Amino acid sequence: MQPFLSHPFDDDKLKEECGVFGVIGVADAANFTALGMHALQHRGQEAGGIVAYDPETGFNSARRFGYVRDNFTSRSVMDTLPGSLAIGHVRYSTAGSKGNTAIRDVQPFFGEFSMGGAAIAHNGNLTNAAALRRELIERGSIFQSSSDSECIIHLMARSIQKNISERIKDALRRVEGAFSVIAMTRTKLIGVRDPLGVRPLVLGRVGEGWALSSETCALDIIGAEFIREIEPGEMVVIEHGEVQSSRPFGPAKSRFCIFEHVYFSRPDSILGGRSVYETRRQIGVELAIEAPVEADLVCPVPDSGTPAAIGYSQQSGIPYAMGIIRNQYMGRTFIEPTESIRNMGVLLKLNVNRALIKGKRVILVDDSVVRGTTSRKIKDMILDAGAAEVHFRIASPPTAWPCFYGVDTPDRDKLLAARMSEEEMREWIGVDSLKFISLDGLYRAAGEANGRNRASPQYCDACFSGEYPVAPADQIENGFQMKAAE
Amino acid sequence: MQPFLSHPFDDDKLKEECGVFGVIGVADAANFTALGMHALQHRGQEAGGIVAYDPETGFNSARRFGYVRDNFTSRSVMDTLPGSLAIGHVRYSTAGSKGNTAIRDVQPFFGEFSMGGAAIAHNGNLTNAAALRRELIERGSIFQSSSDSECIIHLMARSIQKNISERIKDALRRVEGAFSVIAMTRTKLIGVRDPLGVRPLVLGRVGEGWALSSETCALDIIGAEFIREIEPGEMVVIEHGEVQSSRPFGPAKSRFCIFEHVYFSRPDSILGGRSVYETRRQIGVELAIEAPVEADLVCPVPDSGTPAAIGYSQQSGIPYAMGIIRNQYMGRTFIEPTESIRNMGVLLKLNVNRALIKGKRVILVDDSVVRGTTSRKIKDMILDAGAAEVHFRIASPPTAWPCFYGVDTPDRDKLLAARMSEEEMREWIGVDSLKFISLDGLYRAAGEANGRNRASPQYCDACFSGEYPVAPADQIENGFQMKAAE
Amino acid sequence: MQPFLSHPFDDDKLKEECGVFGVIGVADAANFTALGMHALQHRGQEAGGIVAYDPETGFNSARRFGYVRDNFTSRSVMDTLPGSLAIGHVRYSTAGSKGNTAIRDVQPFFGEFSMGGAAIAHNGNLTNAAALRRELIERGSIFQSSSDSECIIHLMARSIQKNISERIKDALRRVEGAFSVIAMTRTKLIGVRDPLGVRPLVLGRVGEGWALSSETCALDIIGAEFIREIEPGEMVVIEHGEVQSSRPFGPAKSRFCIFEHVYFSRPDSILGGRSVYETRRQIGVELAIEAPVEADLVCPVPDSGTPAAIGYSQQSGIPYAMGIIRNQYMGRTFIEPTESIRNMGVLLKLNVNRALIKGKRVILVDDSVVRGTTSRKIKDMILDAGAAEVHFRIASPPTAWPCFYGVDTPDRDKLLAARMSEEEMREWIGVDSLKFISLDGLYRAAGEANGRNRASPQYCDACFSGEYPVAPADQIENGFQMKAAE
Amino acid sequence: MQPFLSHPFDDDKLKEECGVFGVIGVADAANFTALGMHALQHRGQEAGGIVAYDPETGFNSARRFGYVRDNFTSRSVMDTLPGSLAIGHVRYSTAGSKGNTAIRDVQPFFGEFSMGGAAIAHNGNLTNAAALRRELIERGSIFQSSSDSECIIHLMARSIQKNISERIKDALRRVEGAFSVIAMTRTKLIGVRDPLGVRPLVLGRVGEGWALSSETCALDIIGAEFIREIEPGEMVVIEHGEVQSSRPFGPAKSRFCIFEHVYFSRPDSILGGRSVYETRRQIGVELAIEAPVEADLVCPVPDSGTPAAIGYSQQSGIPYAMGIIRNQYMGRTFIEPTESIRNMGVLLKLNVNRALIKGKRVILVDDSVVRGTTSRKIKDMILDAGAAEVHFRIASPPTAWPCFYGVDTPDRDKLLAARMSEEEMREWIGVDSLKFISLDGLYRAAGEANGRNRASPQYCDACFSGEYPVAPADQIENGFQMKAAE
Repeated sequence: MQPFLSHPFDDDKLKEECGVFGVIGVADAANFTALGMHALQHRGQEAGGIVAYDPETGFNSARRFGYVRDNFTSRSVMDTLPGSLAIGHVRYSTAGSKGNTAIRDVQPFFGEFSMGGAAIAHNGNLTNAAALRRELIERGSIFQSSSDSECIIHLMARSIQKNISERIKDALRRVEGAFSVIAMTRTKLIGVRDPLGVRPLVLGRVGEGWALSSETCALDIIGAEFIREIEPGEMVVIEHGEVQSSRPFGPAKSRFCIFEHVYFSRPDSILGGRSVYETRRQIGVELAIEAPVEADLVCPVPDSGTPAAIGYSQQSGIPYAMGIIRNQYMGRTFIEPTESIRNMGVLLKLNVNRALIKGKRVILVDDSVVRGTTSRKIKDMILDAGAAEVHFRIASPPTAWPCFYGVDTPDRDKLLAARMSEEEMREWIGVDSLKFISLDGLYRAAGEANGRNRASPQYCDACFSGEYPVAPADQIENGFQMKAAE
Repeated sequence: MQPFLSHPFDDDKLKEECGVFGVIGVADAANFTALGMHALQHRGQEAGGIVAYDPETGFNSARRFGYVRDNFTSRSVMDTLPGSLAIGHVRYSTAGSKGNTAIRDVQPFFGEFSMGGAAIAHNGNLTNAAALRRELIERGSIFQSSSDSECIIHLMARSIQKNISERIKDALRRVEGAFSVIAMTRTKLIGVRDPLGVRPLVLGRVGEGWALSSETCALDIIGAEFIREIEPGEMVVIEHGEVQSSRPFGPAKSRFCIFEHVYFSRPDSILGGRSVYETRRQIGVELAIEAPVEADLVCPVPDSGTPAAIGYSQQSGIPYAMGIIRNQYMGRTFIEPTESIRNMGVLLKLNVNRALIKGKRVILVDDSVVRGTTSRKIKDMILDAGAAEVHFRIASPPTAWPCFYGVDTPDRDKLLAARMSEEEMREWIGVDSLKFISLDGLYRAAGEANGRNRASPQYCDACFSGEYPVAPADQIENGFQMKAAE
Repeated sequence: MQPFLSHPFDDDKLKEECGVFGVIGVADAANFTALGMHALQHRGQEAGGIVAYDPETGFNSARRFGYVRDNFTSRSVMDTLPGSLAIGHVRYSTAGSKGNTAIRDVQPFFGEFSMGGAAIAHNGNLTNAAALRRELIERGSIFQSSSDSECIIHLMARSIQKNISERIKDALRRVEGAFSVIAMTRTKLIGVRDPLGVRPLVLGRVGEGWALSSETCALDIIGAEFIREIEPGEMVVIEHGEVQSSRPFGPAKSRFCIFEHVYFSRPDSILGGRSVYETRRQIGVELAIEAPVEADLVCPVPDSGTPAAIGYSQQSGIPYAMGIIRNQYMGRTFIEPTESIRNMGVLLKLNVNRALIKGKRVILVDDSVVRGTTSRKIKDMILDAGAAEVHFRIASPPTAWPCFYGVDTPDRDKLLAARMSEEEMREWIGVDSLKFISLDGLYRAAGEANGRNRASPQYCDACFSGEYPVAPADQIENGFQMKAAE
Repeated sequence: MQPFLSHPFDDDKLKEECGVFGVIGVADAANFTALGMHALQHRGQEAGGIVAYDPETGFNSARRFGYVRDNFTSRSVMDTLPGSLAIGHVRYSTAGSKGNTAIRDVQPFFGEFSMGGAAIAHNGNLTNAAALRRELIERGSIFQSSSDSECIIHLMARSIQKNISERIKDALRRVEGAFSVIAMTRTKLIGVRDPLGVRPLVLGRVGEGWALSSETCALDIIGAEFIREIEPGEMVVIEHGEVQSSRPFGPAKSRFCIFEHVYFSRPDSILGGRSVYETRRQIGVELAIEAPVEADLVCPVPDSGTPAAIGYSQQSGIPYAMGIIRNQYMGRTFIEPTESIRNMGVLLKLNVNRALIKGKRVILVDDSVVRGTTSRKIKDMILDAGAAEVHFRIASPPTAWPCFYGVDTPDRDKLLAARMSEEEMREWIGVDSLKFISLDGLYRAAGEANGRNRASPQYCDACFSGEYPVAPADQIENGFQMKAAE
């Protein structure tokens, strides 16, 4: 089967690895969960799974490769998932699993303990998973998957605590890195966020029940009311309609992932009390202030550059236009004819609005530059169509460092910004100008009026700054070089 | 299998029924054809077919339900379609075929004649197909399909002309209605447009070969150069690298479908020398002049309302914003939970950008109103999100008459505008104001500076005006009431 | 997809090409038809089709590659085939169709005529199909398939007779060769057998309704009572519960296919008033008389050699034993390991009962020798297992001529008996003795006490004798050499 | 999907639950394993799995529902299983697993230990699995499946022994019941049989490599030489071409399952030095001596009754005949027509040879009577066809007790012989006579000239005698009542 592609240039974007969702206290919890996962599909397209609990048939699960809409919409599947309590997970594949064993890597993971079963779904990445895995195998645990997340359920199985909530706490105190976890027992829905709160997690009210979700857009689809975010370092246990909050970890300062604002989250979600769309539009405003240029049109690279392009246009007064049209039916790879087609890969996904672009000075607004290969091809297309000038404006600072907290990034030496200066990048891409928003500009757009607090940054921005809030232990063991202290 | 949905609210839109594509004089013609069909997928999502000719293996064909990207991208299929000459067709299902026999209705159709085989692909609809079919059956023809287009190939089989090009002319002189036909023999690629030129057909140059296509966007994807439109009433025969043009029909005045400008064609295509995107943006400009209103935001109903919304914003000075976000993974129907979700059908496809909309006066720009049911649901969503006012602006005149020229329209009594005045529609939908662009405004946006020529309209606008340029004979026989002469 | 193999050594057997079945006057006629086709599956494994008629939804059809049990057992398929009248067809593939167009070749064929629709299913082969096809194309017919049987429906479409029964007669008077045809209109079930009655066709009573079938075993599965055979040259029209018989063709003497007795028909069917099993057992008795040999065991080559082996054992007194065991799960082709396995193709299907065979003198009874390749491999296996002697006894005379009446035979130069004498064959296969039953012996076993009437043979035995009761016109045109007159 | 049926009346037979196969020291070990599993398919049709080891890619596995021929024959699957060492397993489903989680229950099971990985495949059933599972969960093991066999790999993970062979011994000393286990590490192929040797396991030589298999028929298919049986209580470790034997358990007397002779094993396999076919034929001889009756024909119930019917005929002199014909294409369930068909379930699989049976006194030989429902239906069919008398002769003693050693048996109260005397059974089935072979007769046929040694039976015959050689601990805990001591 060919890979599932959904964003144009998935292969030249950072990719969120997961979305999590759970609901308790509603009939047909699995149906709600499928809808929630569908709304979170942008966080992971490769596979998805649901575990539901029903007093009569116990824990039931279904895990499948592919889109939620293709797997969790038939009666034949959904009828096997009865009950008023369910959790779900969508995932993007990572290098660790490949071939025919990978269905084992699809979450939620389930474990039977002496006091009953539990399932967990994890968004994020554990930075000490390799060491933990070695230790657990040494003690007799048998791993089903190659996933870092499975460590959590084995730590729970070996915990000497009596009830499952306590075992989750116990387990999560042993892990390092980023985690927004949704778990379930026979009667409880549990949500936990790591002390830094790197990945999002929100709470909603649905009828008499409750929902937990990576983003608010998944509350909207089920008609749930958005109540509040789970706080960094907080654990909530929902049982018999009550939400109990506790703080299992020591105090820590929040370091939410700023790239969720730039690209990962859906524009209709609300993060930190702000519309993601509005933050992105504001980035465009800041960019227009920081990096103005004379031109005829401001065009987004669809679809993720759209809000920033609107902001840039509004601030600069240069007309906004759809200079590049996305093919809504893109998806698979076609066979290239022998007489090969220039930039066919891009043409399958995008087309230039030639009659519009011809002879114009064009500002292209994109969300980020990772490898830079796509930017180069888009520039080609725009010039082929007869543009007079091409100016790139990027809605994030140069991406120069990999993320180890649940995002799929290329190795550092594949990142264009890790190898080149801004001017070198401009020349390599081949455009008239190339400008990135500054870190301070990005923080301002995200609501920090005074920009970034260098002494104690308000967000995790390691992919831009190289400052990792949690040391990536497994990676360092494998030879990763941290940024030298300044 | 669930229906293939791709536009939000497919069920409340007029739907183009077909796209056609053909190429000659290139290696792997079928691969080029698959790409062209992929670019034309918006014209028909239900099924597609390719016929290719190769001197060694003869005519080969593959016809499949579903998207081009899912059917015509594997080696196992494409290797069965060798040769340097191929034609393809994408289709939307029509009422005539249902159940398990429908694969027979998928074009291209093929016939073996005494002088060799030929295949044809037809975009449009024949208005005298029922009568022709009766006559042909009476004379001993056996129909494979329920498609009106099959008449053409049976007329060809019975023609007393000697070569296939002459037989096509002969056959097309017997049919009435709208047709853009691409045909192929063992050595020729043939294109014909009906005398009124209702449906589009363009000619492109690809390397040493030639391509014919419904729209220019399919030329772009294969890197072909757009040469010119096939003219209304023109037939081109391409053989040995030469294009021969002739005029098989008597003289007639062009009546191109104006709805191609409004909705059917892709915004990056060029029609009548103009960017479709630019025409749509201009419709927004006209709308802002014709139907201004005080408001805070101009929001498109995605995706088809976007260009007109941009135009409206630019003309009115009211900020453009993405107030409604489309779920890019939509597709199938989910099982609704027992505790049913208000407007779930819409929420699967769209979500309101709540933080943006709250408390705002919102202008929503949509391309058309057919049944009106979707407009009503969108209004609900916007009001649920706390909008202060909702104003609908529609980029086409009221759709009051069905189309019989290759577009899937509901029966007349299902069309909102056939049953209600504009004010009644406003009230039924439940918005603060509802305005449609005037016919003259639409013609101006489409490049007719003086608007519509009432004596001799420049376009086919029967769906708005009820003035049918070709009498729909089969429909009249079935009881359809034409508009009374004024 | 890999070929469907069901008999061991399908590739070294003559193969019946079709089975037909039809039923009228019962609720759910298609379900009965599916069962009947299942019972006739041995007559054609590649594909099957059903057409059913229901006053409300008209004619409906389903045609599929693969086994009846895999295609016509789900509600989703069978619910599309309502009505109390249905016909079905199972087919073995022939050389004429290959690749992705072959579903068109699956019967029943359907045609809409001015007086209503009709469907036909044909078992047999028309010997003048190529000439008829040329003539029909010349006159404007468009063929859907590469099947000879399609000529019948086109002849019907062009007939100047008024009702469909008359048109069938009209059409069948133009064709030559072998045909047992089942047809249906909206109200009638029709059965016709060619004047020589080469292929079987029987009539049964099921409740208040009637059934037509290739063999009686398909009557048994639906609990129908076997009434009688349709006679050579007879046509029956069943309507409103009445069976009307007529004789559309001039008088002719019956020449039923004797190979139906030897191999094609199921052993539990009744042909000419005799159990097929019993005829086969009697062949073994005759063989034991004609070709005795001293040995320890009589073993059938499973499964088709079993009845004759039983007869041989009973006549000779040599114990019957299962020396070769068939793997009941055989089916597809496995990937052969690099260290290739001797006779793996055979081992996938059969295994020698080694402990039994070791040191024994073994008589192997098989139904026929076609290419001889399988006989050679089986001999290898038996000798590998330590047999002291191997004697082949064949339940049919040497197969020296191809069949043109609906059986898939290799070209004449591939038939072992066309190239070698009996002694040469024995040596080539490598066994201690090899004996075929005589033509007279075969006729005696089939009930003709005086053996074959040379002047006017009671059966068609062209594959053994080279005496073709109908001249194979198309084949002769293609260069086939008939046997020289003696 | 409908259930996989392969024997007629699977639902009225005892069913072997598993077959195991492994090979080392050959290229493409997985291809050999697929062939071996194909030959063992009669031991388990629901699912199969292969694990292969290759130094470059490590352990790879594929586990699928359905037949070996459908799952392990494509390059796309087999190419993922490289290496010269592989093991495989075929299984029949048991009550414990159902619905969408069952793929987890498909063996081989794999575990990663600190000294490397290992995989195991188990034929048999552990009688203390429930207790072991509770203990392991208590200590922190997480089970992937509902299979009793998974206990073995968790016991191995927790063993304090240093290498994997020792850990297997350690683990198997904790389990009770029946087990023939094949295991593999990165370099070793290991085979172990429980002290009583209830299930078979044999050793073969294939080229320079070695194979282990449940039955010898799987050695034949790969062209391997049968070397010897693994002895009860023996463990063999094959590495670097050497076979090392050891005895990990204390001394015990062999109690091989006698039902393997009656029904489970393939007739071409060799058990205890004897052809299974020959033992079955001898059962027929014994039956004819013990239970003679005057009749016209001896007919097997196909296919499992065939060898005993041959023996009965030879001993009695009554002619052997195929009175019942099996449909070789049986498989799925058809939709029953509204006008329901008497005994349709049976007719899908078998048909009476009516012309043969009519007016005859028939002896039917079957292998066993479990629920008796099938015997009753077959009697109906035979009488419907006009038989004068029906006499059942059964090739095993009355099955009155469930098996807990790896065979799927109904609950005791569903076993006809547990509820009725022989005469009551005869009357309930409705035949003229019904006789079972005696236990002593069965032992004689299996080579024990003096019959059963009551003090110390040579076989496990618990299903007939109620004497369980290993107490079924889990079952007793669940309330199973052992036979009272006499």
